[in-house]
Amino acid sequence: MKARVHVMLKNGVLDPQGEAVRHALGAMGFNQIEGVRQGKVIDLELAEGATEADVTEMCEKLLANTVIERYEIELV
Amino acid sequence: MKARVHVMLKNGVLDPQGEAVRHALGAMGFNQIEGVRQGKVIDLELAEGATEADVTEMCEKLLANTVIERYEIELV
Repeated sequence: MKARVHVMLKNGVLDPQGEAVRHALGAMGFNQIEGVRQGKVIDLELAEGATEADVTEMCEKLLANTVIERYEIELV
Repeated sequence: MKARVHVMLKNGVLDPQGEAVRHALGAMGFNQIEGVRQGKVIDLELAEGATEADVTEMCEKLLANTVIERYEIELV
């Protein structure tokens, strides 16, 4: 089983990486940019028997800092 | 228009971040992990008129290091 986890900063939390990308794109002449948010994507390869609940536990305990980050789990 | 870009290390390129996550999860008792790859996700908010070709150009010029990274673009 494979799972893809997205970890993004919550809305309202300042995202300096995203801002840096926005400025860089603007400086390169891309004027269509209205906003950029950058986050992490973690692809997990799991043994048979692992469940979405296990992945949720991994997110809560290690992969995301739930004070400032939110996560989305996608099983593939 | 919104675009989501995933930037992942190419297969075969060592991924120390992913390995660190794998070890940490193993140490926490998650034994179902067979592999972990970590990458970046960049959410772009684009003005009307921007096209997928523009996003591809951003990836090639700034967002991804195409020597060692591959990218996927998803329009949403």
